[in-house]
Amino acid sequence: MKLISFKSGKQASWGAVVDGSIVDLAVLTGHPTLRSAIEAGALAEIADLMADAKPTHTMESVTLLPVVPDPAKIFCVGTNYHDHRIETGREVPDYPVIFARFANSQVGHQQPILCPVESDQLDFEGEIAVIIGRRGRRVSEAEAWEYVAGYAPYCDGTIRDWQRHTHQWIPGKNFPATGSFGPWMVTRDEIEDGADLSLITRLNGQEVQRSSASLMIFSIPKIIAYCSSFTELEPGDVIVTGTPGGVGGKRVPPLWMKAGDIVEVEVGQVGTLRNPIANAAA
Amino acid sequence: MKLISFKSGKQASWGAVVDGSIVDLAVLTGHPTLRSAIEAGALAEIADLMADAKPTHTMESVTLLPVVPDPAKIFCVGTNYHDHRIETGREVPDYPVIFARFANSQVGHQQPILCPVESDQLDFEGEIAVIIGRRGRRVSEAEAWEYVAGYAPYCDGTIRDWQRHTHQWIPGKNFPATGSFGPWMVTRDEIEDGADLSLITRLNGQEVQRSSASLMIFSIPKIIAYCSSFTELEPGDVIVTGTPGGVGGKRVPPLWMKAGDIVEVEVGQVGTLRNPIANAAA
Repeated sequence: MKLISFKSGKQASWGAVVDGSIVDLAVLTGHPTLRSAIEAGALAEIADLMADAKPTHTMESVTLLPVVPDPAKIFCVGTNYHDHRIETGREVPDYPVIFARFANSQVGHQQPILCPVESDQLDFEGEIAVIIGRRGRRVSEAEAWEYVAGYAPYCDGTIRDWQRHTHQWIPGKNFPATGSFGPWMVTRDEIEDGADLSLITRLNGQEVQRSSASLMIFSIPKIIAYCSSFTELEPGDVIVTGTPGGVGGKRVPPLWMKAGDIVEVEVGQVGTLRNPIANAAA
Repeated sequence: MKLISFKSGKQASWGAVVDGSIVDLAVLTGHPTLRSAIEAGALAEIADLMADAKPTHTMESVTLLPVVPDPAKIFCVGTNYHDHRIETGREVPDYPVIFARFANSQVGHQQPILCPVESDQLDFEGEIAVIIGRRGRRVSEAEAWEYVAGYAPYCDGTIRDWQRHTHQWIPGKNFPATGSFGPWMVTRDEIEDGADLSLITRLNGQEVQRSSASLMIFSIPKIIAYCSSFTELEPGDVIVTGTPGGVGGKRVPPLWMKAGDIVEVEVGQVGTLRNPIANAAA
């Protein structure tokens, strides 16, 4: 299933995409948000519920929200592909490099990613996001897949100069409307555990990053095991698993995103996230 | 006013502490949580509402929760006092060093801070927490005090070896029940803006840290201005403003907290946060 969060008029909801149309699942399940449905363990029943359901919206009639608009935690993994690690001049890390995004830095598919007035160094980072399905602490690598609700493309838009204001990266990773997350989550049942998902980023149609899940330094199970060793994973938590080489800031000359550009992140078997770039209001 | 979040039986609520008793403000105001009351701008009306209110609980009959149990964001400031910066061997930062806690790492006053099975390096960091009262972006230093709802003591309990797994500090700062926050928030109207609040940490009655707000490298207005330059501040957000010198990990031999210890963080004009240390379940 492809699950989305969306807004129709002023009403936020969530649903499933079927043949380009949307079945409103807040109405059908009684769970107001995708996160609350994951928390209630309700995803497994949806296929049955949908058997007789009629689409309620078209994709064109709604505004897509971040797949999970209100995660309790967004873990981001830094330098998790060797080619990106090497272009940033960093050693092979002993553990996953974990930093955080706040939920209010996110936008959905087709919504503008904003270039802030504070900087012109808005960089792309195409990534594979994992959405957590179950509460868990000290999850073993062997059990880790059981904690995955699904996958989505993510653009971890980064303000490079602000990322380097100090040794901690939070400021450059949390400007409003810089983390795009969508269009949808494909549920785990549709993708073989450990599938070598491809990951491609395009800027204005030009490929700027290409890699795949098997090239991660720390695999998805290793990241889940590590994060759950220091905190309890909660349903709807998001793990953004890192970006491969080719980021704009390491090119000569640098390739920053600017108003009018279009950035796309394509994850094999999942879909393509597409966002225009616009200037933030001063 | 002294405002708390608490649990009575299984019911979470919030209230004001008056002469050692509690007036339940969820009932009186209709706002279910302190965060929702701050968001609704309801704190200003409470004094009037309380004029005829009778206490509903004693302090002994409730379990205190973190002052704000559910903040959207917890900003922590690293190395924000020169004596701590020097003991950690770091340069004077050009900008506030910002890292993040997740809400599920917090506990309230008198609740055990947990020493995890994963490490024996549980360190104290006494700090002054600022609770944000209003939504704001690009707040100037001159306006910053207007965005403060109040102040509370905070113990930013740190798992030192996990903090240094990589260059990003999130793992060592987010173990369950390591961030204690309480006992209450004293509202801004009771403390002069810019007051040189004293900050003392004691371990088993022995003073281990002593400083005051005027010794911060980045003042509270500077931190508010900086954080609001890269993200929108939201009502109930928490800024934990940094710890002074004297942390356990920089002593010879190191002084780690262990089960049976008592840690206290005293902030002048605000109060004293007190937590026993216990071992986490394996």
